[in-house]
Amino acid sequence: MATHPAGPEIERLIQLLSRLPGLGPRSARRAALTLLKKKESLLEPLASALREAATAIRSCATCGNLDTADPCALCRDQRRDPQLLCVVEDVADLWALERAGVFKGRYHVLGGALSALEGITPERLNLTPLLARLEDVQEIILAMNATVEGQTTAHYLMDVLQRPGLRITRLAHGVPVGGELDYLDEGTLSAAFRARREPG
Amino acid sequence: MATHPAGPEIERLIQLLSRLPGLGPRSARRAALTLLKKKESLLEPLASALREAATAIRSCATCGNLDTADPCALCRDQRRDPQLLCVVEDVADLWALERAGVFKGRYHVLGGALSALEGITPERLNLTPLLARLEDVQEIILAMNATVEGQTTAHYLMDVLQRPGLRITRLAHGVPVGGELDYLDEGTLSAAFRARREPG
Repeated sequence: MATHPAGPEIERLIQLLSRLPGLGPRSARRAALTLLKKKESLLEPLASALREAATAIRSCATCGNLDTADPCALCRDQRRDPQLLCVVEDVADLWALERAGVFKGRYHVLGGALSALEGITPERLNLTPLLARLEDVQEIILAMNATVEGQTTAHYLMDVLQRPGLRITRLAHGVPVGGELDYLDEGTLSAAFRARREPG
Repeated sequence: MATHPAGPEIERLIQLLSRLPGLGPRSARRAALTLLKKKESLLEPLASALREAATAIRSCATCGNLDTADPCALCRDQRRDPQLLCVVEDVADLWALERAGVFKGRYHVLGGALSALEGITPERLNLTPLLARLEDVQEIILAMNATVEGQTTAHYLMDVLQRPGLRITRLAHGVPVGGELDYLDEGTLSAAFRARREPG
């Protein structure tokens, strides 16, 4: 392949941008051009924000969340119920639940899901700190993704977390709010049908 | 809105990433997380590549292309025919034509297209350097996008560029190679039909 008409600096920038999730080669090229056109308003601030985030953000040793402090703000927040522990695969899932504002307990981030294909074994997950946190916990909510890997992980956790008096729950399956039946897969529809309930 | 659970540094990074074309709020969050998980292999190199590109890349005063040198590599390349001038809206279009390897003349980048809606008037386009480049040019190829703005710009350029002995051409409309008729809009189909030709 010939070198990029705009030189190796742009080629390298495009190559790095294309490694971000959601950016293919074409959108990475467009992103690089946008950055170069908006040097003062976008490129320079982004370069600084990256450096600042690299310095400031660390993993919470307790829960695996990302924060500027360790323990993280959620682990330090005394208003959050330490008897409820919600286990998620990824920090993005924690953020999603926080946006929903639905949960006022503590979190634990596994850092992935079990996957035979990708060689992700229990040792690769953030499990030891989880087992060390069970003392005061009364309910563990397994909020894994509804994928094969997520459900495998949930089954595995149900086994290893089992304690007398510890309640282990999982998120409900069903029709997403605003979802149209016609667009849903059969697995979701049959789960929603089986879990049907009286209105109100 | 509450502050981001991971702090203002992440919030700022996500906000800047979401201003890149092709990244919405959700993919900007995922991109920020990916960057933070791959600090050494992705975040730090990207921050450096941004700084390097900011310092190294400039606009070519002749044609408007982006390059590390001014005049740019394409303008300096003596093998390129100075009698052929291809006018494009954007650097991305120049890159696309260079990838196709179809054109061995010179380029001129307008830096946009006329748009009443966005208030882009001829004065906002890179036109004065274009008018100064016409002396040796025998053919101008107007390679605007097939959009309302692109075609308006092409019409405008046909008027202002008209010179005795200067040939002005435009890209052909038709069925894209690999395109299926069933998926094409009526404008494309009728253009392809009107411009039909003998095979071979």
